Amino acid sequence: MSISGAASPKSGAKFEFDRATFVRRVDSGEMGNLAEYECVVADGWDILGNANGGYLLAILGRAARSATGRNDVVSASIHYLAPVSAGPARVRVEIVRSGRRFATAMASLVVPSGEHQREAARALLTLGDLDTDPGGPSRAFGESPDVVAHSMCLVDDGGNWPVGIRSRLDCRIDPRDAGIRGERRSGDAIVRGWLGFADDRPMDSLALLLACDAFPPAVFNTDLPLGWVPTMDLSFQIRARPTGGPIMCSFRTRHLANGLLEEDGELWDQSGALLALSRQLALAPRA
Amino acid sequence: MSISGAASPKSGAKFEFDRATFVRRVDSGEMGNLAEYECVVADGWDILGNANGGYLLAILGRAARSATGRNDVVSASIHYLAPVSAGPARVRVEIVRSGRRFATAMASLVVPSGEHQREAARALLTLGDLDTDPGGPSRAFGESPDVVAHSMCLVDDGGNWPVGIRSRLDCRIDPRDAGIRGERRSGDAIVRGWLGFADDRPMDSLALLLACDAFPPAVFNTDLPLGWVPTMDLSFQIRARPTGGPIMCSFRTRHLANGLLEEDGELWDQSGALLALSRQLALAPRA
Repeated sequence: MSISGAASPKSGAKFEFDRATFVRRVDSGEMGNLAEYECVVADGWDILGNANGGYLLAILGRAARSATGRNDVVSASIHYLAPVSAGPARVRVEIVRSGRRFATAMASLVVPSGEHQREAARALLTLGDLDTDPGGPSRAFGESPDVVAHSMCLVDDGGNWPVGIRSRLDCRIDPRDAGIRGERRSGDAIVRGWLGFADDRPMDSLALLLACDAFPPAVFNTDLPLGWVPTMDLSFQIRARPTGGPIMCSFRTRHLANGLLEEDGELWDQSGALLALSRQLALAPRA
Repeated sequence: MSISGAASPKSGAKFEFDRATFVRRVDSGEMGNLAEYECVVADGWDILGNANGGYLLAILGRAARSATGRNDVVSASIHYLAPVSAGPARVRVEIVRSGRRFATAMASLVVPSGEHQREAARALLTLGDLDTDPGGPSRAFGESPDVVAHSMCLVDDGGNWPVGIRSRLDCRIDPRDAGIRGERRSGDAIVRGWLGFADDRPMDSLALLLACDAFPPAVFNTDLPLGWVPTMDLSFQIRARPTGGPIMCSFRTRHLANGLLEEDGELWDQSGALLALSRQLALAPRA
């Protein structure tokens, strides 16, 4: 297998996120439970030059959806293996299990590395149809997050940082948490707000994979150095499809131990429905 | 490959958990980044006849530790594919990445299925050394759970259920949450308490993999039916090695939507240190 820039697939999709997550199947379809896709890790979905982890998960999710023929990613866990720059890449999908309600897939992102290639991320995903599966009761045993109205939040432009993904997204920060760029940090490891696309693409279940990793780190509101917070792994469960508009987000870190921290995310729909829960394990930022 | 009961490995280890998670490498060592182990899914580590998910994760963790030569599982995510009965099994490990501080491995549990075999669980694991890696600051941005003293908690024996794992563990439930067997359910989806082994095996980082899934479900304290709560996937991050004695546990469910629920666990050492965070995605119990 070679990963060739010349063969990069192009999508004529209307919205940037759909073009940036476009995948094209390249295998012959005779590989049994395996499928292979080519894609392009697009410019401008990065943080300090490294492609955003949620964006990469969305590419893998899109390939896994295609390979399994399911409508939605229901849960995913991804381990990041190496930073990824913009450029052509491949996604390899293995259909691990194909059940009546759910399918399980493994997806790997493979990128060029000199004359060779390297695996940059590997994910396990459960896929299904969020409209119908599994079906059953709903209950709220907990609270929804306390986030001020979209119109009262402040646009986050990434500050002075080269955060390409900020130009793709419409990220609004709750004023109480908006000191994250260093001027007036709140002291609480919380960042809340709203997220949409800059080009008004409707939010859907695929976009949630991006949204779980698109806010500035919650620990930017603490006394820790401002710096890259590399995600080691991220797990994610989706409960419902968004109804389209900006989604309400809350990210919080409770425990930093020996240089490792978790960041727990909740994504809520404007309608009041829980959309998704995320948790990542990340390295503490260094000065 | 055949999975033969006659070839089942035996361990002379002192404690039941070590015997029940014993793995023996069976490949020739010439498979590059792949390794294969035989093991036995032991009797008595089940819930209603199905091997406990945390127990299976501990078997995979033990094989992954062996294959990578690392001391501790640092994080793991496992997707369960089929229920597992007691009997001989195999673990296949792929070393995905072997870095200076951390290694990433994929591990699969394969069990006999008639004359064939089936994959029953697949996990991605990050391994390292919790004493040294990555090293860095510690901070408590959140609270530790409110659990009463070990001596004040009530022994959970599984009630009238055939819960084999209860005989292996010393599971103590906080009196406020101890109505889980149906008589006086608290109405809050919380179960807190302490966990140790019935044979006083010291808790270590491998035992945390079991501990994250060994308590009765938090939703047993709600109005939902009492029944099997099948785990679809489970993710887990370990921050420190236990110092040996029983560990303090808190499990909570906040959101049940369309038949899916999460259960978030926190495991704390007697010394006051956070040991691990877990999150599982499970199906709501049915009547």
